[in-house]
Amino acid sequence: MLPEGLTRLIHLFSRLPGVGEKTAQRFVLFLVGANADLAHMLADELASLGARLGPCEACGFIAEVTESGAPLRCAICSDNKRDPHLLCVVGRIADLLAIERSGAMRGRYFVLGKLLSPLDGIGPDDLPLATLKRRIADDQVREVVVATPPSVDGEATALLLARELGGGGVRVSRIASGVPHGGDLEFADQITLGRAIEGRKILGE
Amino acid sequence: MLPEGLTRLIHLFSRLPGVGEKTAQRFVLFLVGANADLAHMLADELASLGARLGPCEACGFIAEVTESGAPLRCAICSDNKRDPHLLCVVGRIADLLAIERSGAMRGRYFVLGKLLSPLDGIGPDDLPLATLKRRIADDQVREVVVATPPSVDGEATALLLARELGGGGVRVSRIASGVPHGGDLEFADQITLGRAIEGRKILGE
Repeated sequence: MLPEGLTRLIHLFSRLPGVGEKTAQRFVLFLVGANADLAHMLADELASLGARLGPCEACGFIAEVTESGAPLRCAICSDNKRDPHLLCVVGRIADLLAIERSGAMRGRYFVLGKLLSPLDGIGPDDLPLATLKRRIADDQVREVVVATPPSVDGEATALLLARELGGGGVRVSRIASGVPHGGDLEFADQITLGRAIEGRKILGE
Repeated sequence: MLPEGLTRLIHLFSRLPGVGEKTAQRFVLFLVGANADLAHMLADELASLGARLGPCEACGFIAEVTESGAPLRCAICSDNKRDPHLLCVVGRIADLLAIERSGAMRGRYFVLGKLLSPLDGIGPDDLPLATLKRRIADDQVREVVVATPPSVDGEATALLLARELGGGGVRVSRIASGVPHGGDLEFADQITLGRAIEGRKILGE
């Protein structure tokens, strides 16, 4: 009943993560109405999206292609004010951005791209361990902060990294897991509470 | 920290209804990753979006521009198998699509585009009443089903339409309001329950 172009557009939008048919329809009706300018700006930005971007060759984050054809370096790896000896390993780019927003990491990052997951057939050989080791050696990294999520896959990956990277002057640490800020103990799950107790800090004695 | 093009794209996506900064970022990271083909297909469809579409001159739904330059008619108004004497008045195109999915309307539609809303400064003169009256006269409509939402604005609009359109051989009806199918009486609000009792149907006597 809708013109075919709109049906195609709804179908494309519904391929975005977390977007179903109804949300996609809402986007399209919004764009076809009084927001033709937004549709065209989106079209322009999307059209030129892939052409000028690629993964940073040092860390896997998103970098811009330069005209000189030099190896791709992202804004974080190019930032000389950051501590090169502190490296935070994350699973996904979205996790890197979340940590950056917290402002708590003054070092640089390494994006694994995936986590160990025996059920999905992802083993140690599927992780970019060689690249990570080279990065650690090149930058003389002294501490690797493993910031994979506190899930089964994230914990397995953290254990693997501790075994593979530890020793030889490199400390491997793990982000803390516990009750989140503002969280209610009554509604925290058992594993979270167990970790909060296990990872307790001494305030005075 | 993200390349500027991506920041711009995240900002544009966050202008879509119901999309915040984080959801927009998720869309963009999805598109910049393994889904460059989707980004380009979206760009193509969005670029040609407005050019070939316009509001149906008979009902306000979306119609495709024909090469002959004839007045725009949507697929529903052009469908001869529909009852021309039954007209369903809706507030928004999304409501029209929802009713169409139910399959319960065998007539045609008229999209008001807005509802009476004294608080937002929308009075009777802001509604396309003249166009609606012409449509009713042209098609010799016998029943107008008012399917505006059961909200304050929707009810006010329904009362206005009943006063403006009723009489002279035109019946004005209103869609039923009550407890939704599968709904739980325990969790229904007072107004919904009140309407369900008021609008009760006699099953036998």
